[in-house]
Amino acid sequence: MDVFEKTIDNKNIYKGKIITLDLETVLLPNKKTADREIVRHPGAVAIIPVDESGNIYFVKQFRKAINSELLEIPAGKLERGEEPSECALRELQEEIGYTADKLTFITEIYTSPGFADEKIYIFKAEDLIKSELAKDDDEFINIYRHKPDEVFEMIKKREITDAKTIVALMTAFKL
Amino acid sequence: MDVFEKTIDNKNIYKGKIITLDLETVLLPNKKTADREIVRHPGAVAIIPVDESGNIYFVKQFRKAINSELLEIPAGKLERGEEPSECALRELQEEIGYTADKLTFITEIYTSPGFADEKIYIFKAEDLIKSELAKDDDEFINIYRHKPDEVFEMIKKREITDAKTIVALMTAFKL
Repeated sequence: MDVFEKTIDNKNIYKGKIITLDLETVLLPNKKTADREIVRHPGAVAIIPVDESGNIYFVKQFRKAINSELLEIPAGKLERGEEPSECALRELQEEIGYTADKLTFITEIYTSPGFADEKIYIFKAEDLIKSELAKDDDEFINIYRHKPDEVFEMIKKREITDAKTIVALMTAFKL
Repeated sequence: MDVFEKTIDNKNIYKGKIITLDLETVLLPNKKTADREIVRHPGAVAIIPVDESGNIYFVKQFRKAINSELLEIPAGKLERGEEPSECALRELQEEIGYTADKLTFITEIYTSPGFADEKIYIFKAEDLIKSELAKDDDEFINIYRHKPDEVFEMIKKREITDAKTIVALMTAFKL
């Protein structure tokens, strides 16, 4: 069965600072048409920073979409033309004030393929060096460090509920 | 530090069939204002169906947002007023044609908290019974079954890249 959905009409609803919303009309395999609401996102990276004792860095920040604080690994959006590894080092510096001598690609994921094209590249950062640059002033972030054992307990207890954070930690340490 | 972002203005940009897009103006901790583009989603469930031999069911379907097919566990959006467990059994029937005598809640995740409020409730479904109802006609889906060992190899090889699917399998079997 050919499952490809050919776009027969595309209407842009919104072009924002971060996301774009398109309404695409597609041709289904049964020749009927359907509308697809699609959020376009520039893509992002998420980084697992591990210090020399094996502790993992987390950031806690307010997320307006869910109207509460959320514990996550450092992450951020790709800038135009930016390589994921470059973005990972930039976000590491902006969010926790470190750079890393060793950066390892772990995996890549689609976060919400039903309605958004967001893809997140996940890295592990080791051999951390305190950066001389200031952290980003516009980020209202609290930094935490946890041992891996603690972290998996926190996932079990649902104290960590951010999908990219769970994917990153589980694939980096439990596969 | 009080990190709460108070909404001081809210403009609806789009109300669609599945998602709603709002532009909220918020007051930051430093008393500046910022705009937040927020996608509202009804929430969803994802189900790990496990048969009597321990095989796991997957569905492969075309995802227009990423313009390709994606291998996922069965999943679907919550209908208005629907309980997650009820939704899980409905989607199981619609997508793979089974119902389940045993449904276990595994965890809940936020998929894209930077720009969307989507929350996914994850269940494991066991004691599967072939349903007498027809599968949903409007779903163009291919069904696959894999052994858990195979599944973790597929995550390692990045043949599974859907975040909810990785979170579900790793937390259900590797925690």
